[in-house]
Amino acid sequence: MCVFSEAGLTVSSCETTSQRLNLLAPVTHLSQVSKFSHPDFSVARFADAPDARFVPAPSDGVLPEKFFSTTNLPTYVRVNGEWRMPKEPRMDAALVLEGDGEVWVREGRRVRKGDRVAVGYAENGSEGIFVHISAFMDETAEGEFKFMTSEVSREKPIDYSLMARLLIEERDRGGYPVWVAGPALVHSRARTDMTWFVSNGFVGAFLAGNAVAVHDIEASIFGTTLGMTGSGEATSGGHGLRMRAINKVREAGSIDAAVEQGIITDGIMHSLVRHSVPYVLCGSIRDDGPLPGVFTDALAAQDAMKRHTTRATMAILIATALHAIATGNMLPAFVTEDDGSLRELSTICVDSSEFVVSKLKDRGTHQAFGVVTNAQDFMHILKLYVERELVARETRTPPAAP
Amino acid sequence: MCVFSEAGLTVSSCETTSQRLNLLAPVTHLSQVSKFSHPDFSVARFADAPDARFVPAPSDGVLPEKFFSTTNLPTYVRVNGEWRMPKEPRMDAALVLEGDGEVWVREGRRVRKGDRVAVGYAENGSEGIFVHISAFMDETAEGEFKFMTSEVSREKPIDYSLMARLLIEERDRGGYPVWVAGPALVHSRARTDMTWFVSNGFVGAFLAGNAVAVHDIEASIFGTTLGMTGSGEATSGGHGLRMRAINKVREAGSIDAAVEQGIITDGIMHSLVRHSVPYVLCGSIRDDGPLPGVFTDALAAQDAMKRHTTRATMAILIATALHAIATGNMLPAFVTEDDGSLRELSTICVDSSEFVVSKLKDRGTHQAFGVVTNAQDFMHILKLYVERELVARETRTPPAAP
Amino acid sequence: MCVFSEAGLTVSSCETTSQRLNLLAPVTHLSQVSKFSHPDFSVARFADAPDARFVPAPSDGVLPEKFFSTTNLPTYVRVNGEWRMPKEPRMDAALVLEGDGEVWVREGRRVRKGDRVAVGYAENGSEGIFVHISAFMDETAEGEFKFMTSEVSREKPIDYSLMARLLIEERDRGGYPVWVAGPALVHSRARTDMTWFVSNGFVGAFLAGNAVAVHDIEASIFGTTLGMTGSGEATSGGHGLRMRAINKVREAGSIDAAVEQGIITDGIMHSLVRHSVPYVLCGSIRDDGPLPGVFTDALAAQDAMKRHTTRATMAILIATALHAIATGNMLPAFVTEDDGSLRELSTICVDSSEFVVSKLKDRGTHQAFGVVTNAQDFMHILKLYVERELVARETRTPPAAP
Amino acid sequence: MCVFSEAGLTVSSCETTSQRLNLLAPVTHLSQVSKFSHPDFSVARFADAPDARFVPAPSDGVLPEKFFSTTNLPTYVRVNGEWRMPKEPRMDAALVLEGDGEVWVREGRRVRKGDRVAVGYAENGSEGIFVHISAFMDETAEGEFKFMTSEVSREKPIDYSLMARLLIEERDRGGYPVWVAGPALVHSRARTDMTWFVSNGFVGAFLAGNAVAVHDIEASIFGTTLGMTGSGEATSGGHGLRMRAINKVREAGSIDAAVEQGIITDGIMHSLVRHSVPYVLCGSIRDDGPLPGVFTDALAAQDAMKRHTTRATMAILIATALHAIATGNMLPAFVTEDDGSLRELSTICVDSSEFVVSKLKDRGTHQAFGVVTNAQDFMHILKLYVERELVARETRTPPAAP
Repeated sequence: MCVFSEAGLTVSSCETTSQRLNLLAPVTHLSQVSKFSHPDFSVARFADAPDARFVPAPSDGVLPEKFFSTTNLPTYVRVNGEWRMPKEPRMDAALVLEGDGEVWVREGRRVRKGDRVAVGYAENGSEGIFVHISAFMDETAEGEFKFMTSEVSREKPIDYSLMARLLIEERDRGGYPVWVAGPALVHSRARTDMTWFVSNGFVGAFLAGNAVAVHDIEASIFGTTLGMTGSGEATSGGHGLRMRAINKVREAGSIDAAVEQGIITDGIMHSLVRHSVPYVLCGSIRDDGPLPGVFTDALAAQDAMKRHTTRATMAILIATALHAIATGNMLPAFVTEDDGSLRELSTICVDSSEFVVSKLKDRGTHQAFGVVTNAQDFMHILKLYVERELVARETRTPPAAP
Repeated sequence: MCVFSEAGLTVSSCETTSQRLNLLAPVTHLSQVSKFSHPDFSVARFADAPDARFVPAPSDGVLPEKFFSTTNLPTYVRVNGEWRMPKEPRMDAALVLEGDGEVWVREGRRVRKGDRVAVGYAENGSEGIFVHISAFMDETAEGEFKFMTSEVSREKPIDYSLMARLLIEERDRGGYPVWVAGPALVHSRARTDMTWFVSNGFVGAFLAGNAVAVHDIEASIFGTTLGMTGSGEATSGGHGLRMRAINKVREAGSIDAAVEQGIITDGIMHSLVRHSVPYVLCGSIRDDGPLPGVFTDALAAQDAMKRHTTRATMAILIATALHAIATGNMLPAFVTEDDGSLRELSTICVDSSEFVVSKLKDRGTHQAFGVVTNAQDFMHILKLYVERELVARETRTPPAAP
Repeated sequence: MCVFSEAGLTVSSCETTSQRLNLLAPVTHLSQVSKFSHPDFSVARFADAPDARFVPAPSDGVLPEKFFSTTNLPTYVRVNGEWRMPKEPRMDAALVLEGDGEVWVREGRRVRKGDRVAVGYAENGSEGIFVHISAFMDETAEGEFKFMTSEVSREKPIDYSLMARLLIEERDRGGYPVWVAGPALVHSRARTDMTWFVSNGFVGAFLAGNAVAVHDIEASIFGTTLGMTGSGEATSGGHGLRMRAINKVREAGSIDAAVEQGIITDGIMHSLVRHSVPYVLCGSIRDDGPLPGVFTDALAAQDAMKRHTTRATMAILIATALHAIATGNMLPAFVTEDDGSLRELSTICVDSSEFVVSKLKDRGTHQAFGVVTNAQDFMHILKLYVERELVARETRTPPAAP
Repeated sequence: MCVFSEAGLTVSSCETTSQRLNLLAPVTHLSQVSKFSHPDFSVARFADAPDARFVPAPSDGVLPEKFFSTTNLPTYVRVNGEWRMPKEPRMDAALVLEGDGEVWVREGRRVRKGDRVAVGYAENGSEGIFVHISAFMDETAEGEFKFMTSEVSREKPIDYSLMARLLIEERDRGGYPVWVAGPALVHSRARTDMTWFVSNGFVGAFLAGNAVAVHDIEASIFGTTLGMTGSGEATSGGHGLRMRAINKVREAGSIDAAVEQGIITDGIMHSLVRHSVPYVLCGSIRDDGPLPGVFTDALAAQDAMKRHTTRATMAILIATALHAIATGNMLPAFVTEDDGSLRELSTICVDSSEFVVSKLKDRGTHQAFGVVTNAQDFMHILKLYVERELVARETRTPPAAP
C-alpha cells in the first residue's frame, strides 16, 4: 500500500526507507515484528577480543569502580573465550558472573559482597562486552545507547545566555531579527518586556495577528486584557473592553493616529510606532474588529510578511502555532551573507507545549529549536540575560527615541 | 489598582467581587492571606446539636461502618457539649477520640482495634460534626467539599451514547448541525468517518480552513497527508505532494469541478459536493495554495460562516482552536424554536488537551462541553455509537445520493 | 442511575445537584437539552424600566461612545415599551435599531454612519437592555457574563512579587514552608536557584523522591543529569553516570557521609545537609538504586512526610504530580495560629501543564493556585523577585552556614 | 565545558558528537551558528549534470505537471551550465526563470501564464537542481527533506488493526503480554473493556498501583470513581466513597477474599481473581488505604514486577508515566525465543500527551511506539478491532472461566 504514483513520480522505496528509518517511523517499526541475527563472532574484532574482566563487589549493595552499566539491548559477554548472553536482561544494572560460568544481570542493590561484577565502559566488544546496538537502531545514526535524545522537551535546559548573545550580535551587526508573537505575549505580563526589546533596537520587524494588537491596546487604554486585570481577575463589564478599545482606534482612523492622539500611551504597538519598527498584523477569522491596518486578506498578509522574512537574519517565534508555521513556511533555513557565504538562520520557537515546536519541525522548519515554557517567563528571563550581557560588554544601548 | 474607568464606566467592585469569587480567582485568593473566624457556636443549630457518636474499630486498620471521612477544611467535633478542633487535620482519614477527650485525625491504617471512631455522614453539625466549608468556598456555590469539580478534564468520562442520540435527533427534526474541523481530522484516519457523517445526513454545514480540504484532497489523489502514508510513514518526495494536489484543483478551476472531472474521487470534500452540503473554507496566513473557493479575506469568511452559525441548532467543534473560537464568537448560546421558545445550543468541543476547551469557555462560550481525546478516536467511536443507536431505533438511514 | 446507596448513605440528590451545578458538570448539562422560559416582563423591574437608548453611529464602522456590547446569551431590548429579542444574536457586537422597530445584532465593522446603536453598560434591564444570564448560569454564582473565569490557565498572569513577599514573610515570622519538588527542578538548571533558597533560610522542609537527589548528586559529581550536559546534550556513556553516582553514595554509606567525605560538593542535597534543613526522600517503583536514606516503604514515607505537613505554614509544589497530590492529601487547607485563629495555608503549585494543578484541585486541594510554566524559569524569576524584595526591605539575609 | 571525567572515564567527544548529532541536539545546534560551504561544482556529478528544464505555466496561478517543489534548504539550479541560487528562497513554491537568467522562488498563485517553471523531482542535481541537504542535516540519516518525521505525535495515524493482530498472535502462541495501567483506565469507562481483555485471555500479567484497584473496586461497590458518577458528575458525600471501599476490603482481609465474599462483583480486579491472572499492585506515597496485598515497599514491588517483565513477550503501557517508566527500566528491548533467536519486544505506550512517550524513550525504552489519545477511547477501539479480527479469523475465544 506504500507505493503510489503520479504520472512519472513513483515512490516505491518505502519498504527500504522504513527499514532504515526505524527510529523515525515507530509505527512501521511495529508493523513487522523485527527479528535479529546474532553477530558473527568469528570476525576478527570479536575473535580477538579479550574476556570480560570481573572484580569482586566491595560490600553488599555496592559495585566496584568502573562497573559495566547495562542497557536493554542484546548484550554479549565473553567468558572463557565464549560470547554468551546474560540472563534476565534489563537496563541500569550490573553483570555478575556466577560459579557455573553463567552471567546474570542484577540490580546493584542485590549484589552481595564478593560477587564478581563485570567492569569496563566499552560497549563495542573491545573489553569483552558487546552491546548489539545496530540490532535496533540505525547504526549510521550514531550507534550509541543514549538518554535524552528527543529533540524537543521541557526537560531540556534552556540556554538563555546564548540566546542573549545571539540577539546582541544580530543588533550589533545590523541584522534583521523578525519577531513573531501570539496573544499570550500580551495577555500575560510579557508586554513590558517586549516593549523593551522594541525600544532597544532588538526588533527588525514584528509580525502578529489582530489579537496581539487588540490586547496590547486594551491594556494601554483600560489596564486589562480580555477584561482580566493585571493580577488575573475577571472584571464586571470586562468582556466588552476590548471592543471599546478597538472602537476607539477605528474612530482615530489608524493605530499610528491613535498613538499620535494620545489614545495609546504605552505598550508594544506604541513602541513600534514611536521607534518606526515595521509591523505586520495579519487577520484571521476569529478576529474582533478588526483594528484598522490589519491585513484581512490572507494572501496580501502573506505578501506583507514575506517582505520581512526575505530580509530576516534571525527569527523568534513566541506562543503562536499559526503564525509560527506561517513564518516557517516562508523562511529559508539559511542566511546569505553579503559575501555570498551561507549560515544557518537561527530560529527560536517558544511554546508552553512540545507539540507546537514538533509541529513546526514536522512541517519542514528543521532548524527551529524549541524552548518549552511560559511566554511571560521566557521574555522576562531573556531580557534579564540581555541586560546582563550588555553590562558585561559595557555596551551602551542606543538612546530610546523620545 | 483594581479600579479603572472609562467615562461613565466604573469597575470598582473588584474587591468585593474577588472575595465572593475566591474559587474563580485564585491569584486574588493568594493576594491577601485570608483569615477566618470560628463559627458562632452559640446559635441554635450548633447549641442544639448532639454530641458526635463514636464507635469502636472492629479490628486493627479497619474502621467501623459509616465512619466519618475527613476533609482538609476546618472541622469541629462536639464532645461533651463542647465543639473542638481535632488534631493533625488532613483529608481522607478518620476521627478518633482519645481518653483525654482529645480528638485526633488518623489514617484508617493507623487505627487500632477498639479505638473510638466518629461515625456519621453529615458535615453540617447535625450529627455533632461540622465542616466549616464556607470558610474557604463560596457558600452559595453548593457548599460542599467535592472531588472532580473541574469543568474540563481528560479524567471525565465521555458520554458517546448521549452525543449519538443528540445527533440523530437533530437530523430527525431537521436541525442544522454545524461541524467545524481542524486538519487533524483528515491527517489521521478520521477522514472516512467524517465522510460517513456527511453522506448520512448528519451535517448541516461544514466549516474549516484551507488545510482540511488540502489534506483531504491530497489523500484522495495521492493516498498521503502531508506526504505521510496512512500508516504514518514519511515518504520520499512526499513534502511536495500537497502542492501538487492543490495545483491539480487550481487547474480544474474549482473543487466542484475537480470532483466532476474525477480528479477527487473520495473523501470529505467529495462527499460534501456530491450531497450538496454547504461548506465554507476560510483562509489563513499559513495556507498553501490556496485552493480555489477559499475565502482569503477574513471578513468575507466571517460573513460566510455567519450565514451558517445563524441557522445552527447544534455545533461540533473538532481539533481546531482557531476555528472553534471563531465559531464560538458568532454562535448564540441558544436556539430559538419556531414557537419562540428557547433551548440551549448543544456545543461539543473535542481537543487533545484541556487547554483549547477552557480557552473557548474563557472567551465566553460557556455552554461548550469538552471531550479531551484524539480526533481520530472520537470520530470512530461516535460513528460506532450512532450506528448502534440507529440499529436500536430500527431507523433506516436516508439513501445516499448517487 | 444517579442514585446509589450504601446502608444508610443515600445520595439521591444528584438531579437537583446537577441542575444547580450546570457550570460545573458539563456532561450532565448536555444530558438533557435545557429549555428556558422567557422572563416575566410584567414584574416591576421590567415594567418600570425605560426604553433602551439609541445613538447614531458617528461614521462607517465606528460605534458611538458607551455602545452596548453583546453577549451570546438571550437578550431583550425595550423598544416602545416592548421587550423584544434582537435578530442574529452573537457576542461582541452592537445592537442596531432599524426603521421597522426591529433590533439587529451587528458587528461594529458593519454599522453604517447614522445607524441607531444601543448604548449603556447595564445588563440587568435598568437601561432597557436585559441579558438573561440566569437562563444558563447559576444566578447565585455571580450572575455575570465574564471572560477568563477558568481557575488554572497559562493565560493568567503570574504574580511573582506577591509570592516573593509571602515567602519572605514566612521566613521572618518563623514559618515552616514545605517545598515539594519533582526531578525537573534539578534536571533543568533550577538546581542553583533551589540551592539558594535552601541556603537563605526559605525552606522549612524539603520533600522529594529518590530521582531528585540522584540527579542532583549526578550533577555534583559528573556535571550531568541523566547523562545530559548542562547545555542539553546527550553524551557517550552518559546513561550510566547516575548509576555510578548512586554507587558512590552507597559506598559512602549515606548522603550525609558523602557530603562530609567531599564526594558531594554542591547542589541541593549538599545545601540541605550543610544547613541542617530536614528532608524526606520517598521511594517509588521507578527508582534507580535507591540512594541510602530513601524511604522505600510508602507508609513509612507517608508518616515521615506527615511530620512536616503537620507543621507546614505554606507549601510550594513544583513539577511533580505524584508528590504534589501526596502532599495535598495530607495537608490541611488552613494554618492554626498560636492564638487559635485560622488562616489559609498558601499553596502554590507549579507545573508545565494545567492538568496537574486541576488534578490537585479535583482531589480536594481547592486552596492551591496554579502557575503554569517551566520549573526552571519559575525558580529563576522567583529568586529574582525575592532578591529585589529583600533589597527593597533593606533586609539582610541571614549569614549562610559555612 | 563538555569534557568531564571520572577516574578512567573521559567523555571528550562531545564536540564531534554534537556536530554529527545536529538534528538530535538542537541546543548545541544553536550554540555556534553554523556556516556552510557551497558544494564543489567541479566534481563530476555536478559538472556532468544537465541544465534544469523549464516549462511554461499553462495559466495564471497554475503550475506545469511535475513542477519542482522547493524546500527551505540551500538550492542550486543549473542554467546555461552555471549553478545559481534562486532568489527569495522559501519552501513549497516553484522555481521561475526570468528573462535575465535569474531564477526566482515564487508561490504558485503568483506565477503567470507562460512563466518558465522548473520541472523535475530529483533533488540530487541529476536533473539540474540540487538541494544541499547535508548542509543542515546528517547526510547519513536518510539525506532527504521530509515532513512528519517526529517520532511521537498526535498527528500520526494509529494502526489499531495491527495492534489487534499482534495481541491475538501473542495469545495464540502462548505469549506473555504484560499490561501496565494508570488510574485513568478505570476512572473513565475503559474499565469494562479492560475486564474483557482479562476475561478473554489477552493478559499475561497486570501491573498497576493501589489507585487503579481502589477506583475499580469503588466502581464495583458504589458505582462511582473518586465520587464521580459514570456520567461525570461529582456527588454529595462522594469524596469519602473510595475510603469506604478500601475499608470494606480491609475488613474482608484481601482482594481475593472480597471477591469470594461477594463484596466485589465485577470489574478488573474481579476478573483477574476469577481468571487467576497474576497482578502486582505497587504502593506509592500518594496512596489511600492502601488495599491489602499492595506492595508498600518499592524494592519488594520492583522484585515482584520483575518476575513478570522477565517473562514478558509484549508490553502495553496505558496512561501512566510512573509505572510505564518503571516497567521500561526493567524490560529488555527484545524477546529471546525458545530457539535462541531474538525479536523485538513490542511495546505500546498510550498517553494523552506526547510528553510521556517521549520521556519513556528518553529514558532508554527506544522500542516503545506511542499512541497519543485518551485511554478510554484507546481501549474501546482496540477491543473493537480485536473482536473484528477474531471474527475474521473465525477464531473462537476460549471459554471464560466461571
